[in-house]
Amino acid sequence: MAFRPSARRGPKPKPGTRGTLVQAGLGLMHAEGYAATGIQAVVETAGVPKGSFYNHFASKEAFGAEVIDAYSERGLAKLRDVLTDPARPPLARLEAYFDDRIAAFRTAGHVRGCLMGNFSAEAADHSAVIRDRLAVQFAAWTGLIEACIAEAQADGSAARRFPAPLLAGFVMNSWEGALLRMRVEKSDAPLLAFKQIVFGGLLA
Amino acid sequence: MAFRPSARRGPKPKPGTRGTLVQAGLGLMHAEGYAATGIQAVVETAGVPKGSFYNHFASKEAFGAEVIDAYSERGLAKLRDVLTDPARPPLARLEAYFDDRIAAFRTAGHVRGCLMGNFSAEAADHSAVIRDRLAVQFAAWTGLIEACIAEAQADGSAARRFPAPLLAGFVMNSWEGALLRMRVEKSDAPLLAFKQIVFGGLLA
Repeated sequence: MAFRPSARRGPKPKPGTRGTLVQAGLGLMHAEGYAATGIQAVVETAGVPKGSFYNHFASKEAFGAEVIDAYSERGLAKLRDVLTDPARPPLARLEAYFDDRIAAFRTAGHVRGCLMGNFSAEAADHSAVIRDRLAVQFAAWTGLIEACIAEAQADGSAARRFPAPLLAGFVMNSWEGALLRMRVEKSDAPLLAFKQIVFGGLLA
Repeated sequence: MAFRPSARRGPKPKPGTRGTLVQAGLGLMHAEGYAATGIQAVVETAGVPKGSFYNHFASKEAFGAEVIDAYSERGLAKLRDVLTDPARPPLARLEAYFDDRIAAFRTAGHVRGCLMGNFSAEAADHSAVIRDRLAVQFAAWTGLIEACIAEAQADGSAARRFPAPLLAGFVMNSWEGALLRMRVEKSDAPLLAFKQIVFGGLLA
């Protein structure tokens, strides 16, 4: 990106506008993709003048990085809630998380998948800003899954053939791949196969 | 897509132009993505006048479907070659295929990933033409992997806990997910983790 000397020199940004833009971008970029979403569509959806976009964000890439954060942080809060439920054993918590997501994708019609996976496909090669943010957020997701698997390995309820960090990365990435295939098949089958092999084989 | 009454009514297409356009589109769409690649860039790269594009293809979607076929058929030929090598046992063939791909991605700098996975992320929700072509091509890849796993299960060299079709789909999709993560990490690690768990655990 070229340096934008005018960025952040306009009128003082309204509080709330930034968040409104990010939520509008999140909805559009999740449904349509990163490249297919123009700033014009974001400001129109957010109902703010185009100039205000550049009061808040230096570039589309910088905006995309904030969209990744907003998407990931909402998902991480849900994952953390489910994975720390003391009423269930650790692997049952992880399985409950995936069951919940499978039900949500079924309701939605097997569309959109994971915004982080989509940005990985579209933008990771082209933007260091986006790539670095994806790496940080994927590490946070994988870390929560790893802690859950490590807890199950420690209490003897999960197989110990592979170390928890290796398993957690594989589970995370395999889920991303299953979501791609779900969107092609417009079916739960790839997600259910993921669950059957991960919980009925790999971790059992 | 709107119906284009003018499609295929121009001068008789030159033999070769169609293939030149598809190869140009394959290179651009693999590197830049489907949405980010305009028809103008394709015709400029192919060195043909823009009008000739619509002599050959009714729409960008129809073109994208042919790009998927060209990409997939080249890859399938390679996969088929490796998986039918009688000098090695079946799982060693499959492992050799992934070793070859990992070496190629390392040489390329961990970019681009799988065009079919990328189109799944970008276009599967928006184009039935592209979605259907992806489903057909993924089924072809998964079918070759399934035959290899079934052969290994039959000769006792692969675990039989799960049926070959289920395993093959999971392996295919997990590879796609590992490729997404490779592009974020710019590292072999997700691909090596995939291999370690699939060949050292799931199929062993």
